[in-house]
Amino acid sequence: MSTLKGACIIGQSGGPTSVINASAYGCIKTALENENITKVYGALNGIKGVLDDNLIDMGKEDPNELEYMKYTPSSALGSCRYKLKSADVDDTDYHRILEIFRKYDVRYFFYNGGNDSMDTCNKISKFMLEHNYECRVMGIPKTIDNDLAGTDHCPGYASAAKYIATSLMEIYHDARVYDKGMITVVEIMGRNAGWLTAAAALASYKGCGPDLIYLPEVAFNMKDFIAKVKAIYEEKGKCIIAVSEGIHNRMGRLVSDTGKKDSFGHPQLGGLAALLAKKLEKATGAKVRGIELSLLQRCAAHCASQTDIEESFSAGKAAVECAVAGVTDKMVGFKRKKSKSGYKCAIELFDLSVVANTEKKVPKSWLNKTKDGLNDKFIAYALPLIQGETQLPKEDGLPRFVKLNKIKAE
Amino acid sequence: MSTLKGACIIGQSGGPTSVINASAYGCIKTALENENITKVYGALNGIKGVLDDNLIDMGKEDPNELEYMKYTPSSALGSCRYKLKSADVDDTDYHRILEIFRKYDVRYFFYNGGNDSMDTCNKISKFMLEHNYECRVMGIPKTIDNDLAGTDHCPGYASAAKYIATSLMEIYHDARVYDKGMITVVEIMGRNAGWLTAAAALASYKGCGPDLIYLPEVAFNMKDFIAKVKAIYEEKGKCIIAVSEGIHNRMGRLVSDTGKKDSFGHPQLGGLAALLAKKLEKATGAKVRGIELSLLQRCAAHCASQTDIEESFSAGKAAVECAVAGVTDKMVGFKRKKSKSGYKCAIELFDLSVVANTEKKVPKSWLNKTKDGLNDKFIAYALPLIQGETQLPKEDGLPRFVKLNKIKAE
Repeated sequence: MSTLKGACIIGQSGGPTSVINASAYGCIKTALENENITKVYGALNGIKGVLDDNLIDMGKEDPNELEYMKYTPSSALGSCRYKLKSADVDDTDYHRILEIFRKYDVRYFFYNGGNDSMDTCNKISKFMLEHNYECRVMGIPKTIDNDLAGTDHCPGYASAAKYIATSLMEIYHDARVYDKGMITVVEIMGRNAGWLTAAAALASYKGCGPDLIYLPEVAFNMKDFIAKVKAIYEEKGKCIIAVSEGIHNRMGRLVSDTGKKDSFGHPQLGGLAALLAKKLEKATGAKVRGIELSLLQRCAAHCASQTDIEESFSAGKAAVECAVAGVTDKMVGFKRKKSKSGYKCAIELFDLSVVANTEKKVPKSWLNKTKDGLNDKFIAYALPLIQGETQLPKEDGLPRFVKLNKIKAE
Repeated sequence: MSTLKGACIIGQSGGPTSVINASAYGCIKTALENENITKVYGALNGIKGVLDDNLIDMGKEDPNELEYMKYTPSSALGSCRYKLKSADVDDTDYHRILEIFRKYDVRYFFYNGGNDSMDTCNKISKFMLEHNYECRVMGIPKTIDNDLAGTDHCPGYASAAKYIATSLMEIYHDARVYDKGMITVVEIMGRNAGWLTAAAALASYKGCGPDLIYLPEVAFNMKDFIAKVKAIYEEKGKCIIAVSEGIHNRMGRLVSDTGKKDSFGHPQLGGLAALLAKKLEKATGAKVRGIELSLLQRCAAHCASQTDIEESFSAGKAAVECAVAGVTDKMVGFKRKKSKSGYKCAIELFDLSVVANTEKKVPKSWLNKTKDGLNDKFIAYALPLIQGETQLPKEDGLPRFVKLNKIKAE
């Protein structure tokens, strides 16, 4: 493979995670140090930053300050939820991207996001190839949802899982403190894949977790649900339930469907914990508390998994190294390897076309027999991922997050 | 003061905090090691454990296991919200308590809770004195609300404050990631005193906090609120607001009043963030997100302040040491002392009668001029309290909380 010299662009897209910046930092740091990469640009707000010629020069940031990116949640470069149309339908955006790539001599494009971002990568890569513009395109995954195909797990998932399991253990202690009965419903993110909600099982594994766990992989039956909660409550006086925001009945109708849609056309969900709490209160007469873990589960960097942080960094680093070595049109992912200590993670490359727009769900064989909890297979999968406490630097007892100068590219 | 030999009871009451067990552990450990204290009993579910003769023998717990109490949130002995009637009205409970005290030769009573618990202490102390039963009664404060009179601050506040400030900094990063406008309303606990909500100002001090902070100390005006948010949103495209659950209009009517009351007769609040989000959405047309920090703010031991943990432990320890030395009818509190490093905390004793049922609020002089934020006086007060990261032991990447055997007293 020939040596390719030129500038690179890195952009971030989709919802935040605690470690998306760790990946971006791995990419930026490696690119800045690579002699074939002449300039490292950050696209502000993802692909929109490219379309709007809104690029910043990462080389002009203080390298010591950049290091803080590794522990800063959310997307330091800003994100977007902009989905490129198919070039067959409308190629305006693609021509504009090519124009910008030419303007800055961009020969490497790294895109850091979820399924939709891998789709963007794939479309750009194809267009550049068709227009004989040599540019290596690499996807760097992130998603708390853990639903990307191919890779063993996604950067971002483990930190959210660690926060969810930790919070559930704490809620467990809080929810059983009074001698009065109490039911607690905890709503967890994940529209179609139940990976995040499944993480609540790690708390149960530690003896301080929910009694029941409902994933979107299993059709939800309200009557059965209420009967199960009632039985546990009557026996123990307490019941904790973890539910995915995406639970739906067997017809596919979301329990929490508000009727609204987001900019990708996905239904906007919300208020499920409150809704279930009301139903349970009516059915049991117990005090019921509904808790929504809200966006903290995707940005609680203070409770991130150091394993996740290091792996995310290495994904960003590998993207640059592979691209410089000649790879293109791939997503960097992980392969789990057996080691003496039980867990080892290696980089593996996946075709963008395979990854884009497919969703990996929790295998049904990882559910317990009554489909309201997870079995040991899930624990064995998830536990290694959440190991290690974040080395997030603190200042005055509070996180010290990155402050970028964001100097416009010339 | 004469030496008093006999057993002791420790009980916990009121809502959980991240460090109430650190205080209980300070008390239990010191009592177990003291030669004048013959037995150390834990009352299960606070004063109800005494009334129901439901005591456990703390001496029968593994001392190594007991150490985990220092980092375990919520009340390890269980809590209650039982308020003793005045003995003039009905002294049944008091006679029962005396009976139990006699049965177990209890000469020391330590009660670990908030205002209502200090009231319980005070009433029991008076009754024992009137009935010539020698028993030393000490209150060990805890409350995330920080509203106890006398003491510079309350064990439990700092850890909740650290969690709130940290979470607000993380939410700040999450809430500004898209190029689209966004308004975020974060609802924080605190019915009458705004200490917890004020902690959000620590995030603003660090440059990543809310634009507006509303405490219950200031009458809330919906029209002004909406106008302020609108102005900030129009200028910056983003606005983050921290509101106390207890905000009310100038007539005292709670913005979030649901009409329901809890077992102490205090109004039950809820849904404020959602309510304000709806109003702001209508007024601005922006995407508005309502977040309730929920009970995680009082039990997130993984984000506790080590300063708070050590001080809480020392409060429990001091209660025993003072009682053995002859003190009774006092609450252990803190006095802030100037030191070369800027902050030092010393133990100070307060009369239970003064502490019970009074509430300390945020001084008006600590608010900014527009009464929608805090000034440097608050920062200088709160910042030293949140220093230090919890040394919470981990097992498998998750908290290792205490597991008590709870062996019944004989």
